[in-house]
Amino acid sequence: MSSELVQRILKRDVRAVATAITLIENRDPKAQTVLKAIYGQTGRAHVIGVTGAAGTGKSTLIDRLTAEYRRRKRSVGILAVDPSSVFSTGAVLGDRVRLREHFLDGEVFIRSFASRGETGGLSAAVRDAIHLLDAMGKDIVIVETIGVGQDELEIAKLAYTVLVVLMPYIGDEVQAMTAGYGEIADILVVNKADLAGAAETLRQLKAVFGESDPLVMAASALKNEGINALVEAIEQRRAQSLRNGSYEKKRLDLCRQELLALLRARIFADLAQKIGADSLDENARLIADRRVDPYSATEQMAKKAGLT
Amino acid sequence: MSSELVQRILKRDVRAVATAITLIENRDPKAQTVLKAIYGQTGRAHVIGVTGAAGTGKSTLIDRLTAEYRRRKRSVGILAVDPSSVFSTGAVLGDRVRLREHFLDGEVFIRSFASRGETGGLSAAVRDAIHLLDAMGKDIVIVETIGVGQDELEIAKLAYTVLVVLMPYIGDEVQAMTAGYGEIADILVVNKADLAGAAETLRQLKAVFGESDPLVMAASALKNEGINALVEAIEQRRAQSLRNGSYEKKRLDLCRQELLALLRARIFADLAQKIGADSLDENARLIADRRVDPYSATEQMAKKAGLT
Repeated sequence: MSSELVQRILKRDVRAVATAITLIENRDPKAQTVLKAIYGQTGRAHVIGVTGAAGTGKSTLIDRLTAEYRRRKRSVGILAVDPSSVFSTGAVLGDRVRLREHFLDGEVFIRSFASRGETGGLSAAVRDAIHLLDAMGKDIVIVETIGVGQDELEIAKLAYTVLVVLMPYIGDEVQAMTAGYGEIADILVVNKADLAGAAETLRQLKAVFGESDPLVMAASALKNEGINALVEAIEQRRAQSLRNGSYEKKRLDLCRQELLALLRARIFADLAQKIGADSLDENARLIADRRVDPYSATEQMAKKAGLT
Repeated sequence: MSSELVQRILKRDVRAVATAITLIENRDPKAQTVLKAIYGQTGRAHVIGVTGAAGTGKSTLIDRLTAEYRRRKRSVGILAVDPSSVFSTGAVLGDRVRLREHFLDGEVFIRSFASRGETGGLSAAVRDAIHLLDAMGKDIVIVETIGVGQDELEIAKLAYTVLVVLMPYIGDEVQAMTAGYGEIADILVVNKADLAGAAETLRQLKAVFGESDPLVMAASALKNEGINALVEAIEQRRAQSLRNGSYEKKRLDLCRQELLALLRARIFADLAQKIGADSLDENARLIADRRVDPYSATEQMAKKAGLT
């Protein structure tokens, strides 16, 4: 069954990809069989991370980027990581009304992930899904995340190009809101550039970041302004990174990060098995009663599990 | 030297606590010696998590809460986890002007943590710092985080009571912005309740969350309104949880989570040693060249490291 699924994924069968992503989300062991089989066909997609706070118009911007890439005859996959999708499906769908037109376009694949469970679990699932969309031949894979938390940072790190979407702010807030973005962003997009304060926000951002790293750009997704220039900038950076070797370096680094994340998950599963739930509960009880400290308990349990 | 530091911490010496937190931040092995020694004196502080997006007025609210608790003769420790503190120290300090008056109050301890490094590293450091403030006799430990990312969620989980701070929004945004908050919040605080739209925001939140879980409250930190009622609500929930056993359950769960986090860190350090950097680089290269898939590479490396 897995090999049939693999064949269908490589033949760009949207329903097969959707099935495989469900396997990934459910941590079904079949997912890894599929991922192993398709991995050789990956490494071609340009993965673009788009992050920023709620209300900045990320979804609309992604919609416009998708339309522009489709105009350029590039196929697009969208993975939306939405911590709010737990129960606000209505609101999120409402937010995505414009994306619906792309549903009718066979070359656009859209899928949402809810942010739940263990730290790292989400980024692992997204990474696996990127491989699938890559293997099915998507030229562009857009990964949308909300916020600047650690998990979102991890997901942003899965991308070759990271856009951080802001909206115009007033005065001192700019610095506070954008601090930290500089570390992850390749391009800072001031969306809603038609609103008051946009010029001042741009000026302040350029004062902080200079002209190139990250690149500061204005756009109005709603009015469809600045989108072509943004795609041009993304593509130029991509071409440049291919020439100067930074793409290759990033590619190796992504593989290294993926390997570390997989090893971390693997070893923790192993630990849970070796230690067992009983010992964990028993030690938690001792710690809660202050009969042992958590650091000593950890040392003892690690010793028992055969760690050096 | 460690035992002298421990004595000074237990005698509420602020400089000793600051020194110990620096040891924690630097991952100095001495930190654990200190933490083990003071752990028996912990478990008394009421840890209150305060989270919410930038611009919601968290800092001012925390300032007001601190003043109210001081009025009630309770000592207060504040741990501010600030992903933006990497280079926006100026802005953050500006934001904290009002907190400065508390610096003059010996019963208020304030410390910031920058959000950097490995996932989980920050929450481990904050957890350790909570133990210190607890052991030095702080009645209230307020942990401030920004955003709703996974790391912030982890830190929120360190608290017995979690406040999520919002500001008035318009229409549909409320639902999108607050989804996910319900999972972590004990109390949703609509700050800036003097602004237009506050009544409508409150109405919508109450429509979503009902009357109690989470509790939805209004406040204006700037105008110092609603603060006493908020502290009353926090204290009532605390008293109730002590009576109905949910406090004890939460306490046990926190110990369990801490133990798991420590084991995870411990085992990963062990893995890095067993595998070595060379093997990691070599495998990353093979994966980048698509000569092996990351899942099979992980299995092989785990096997080599002696995992079952």
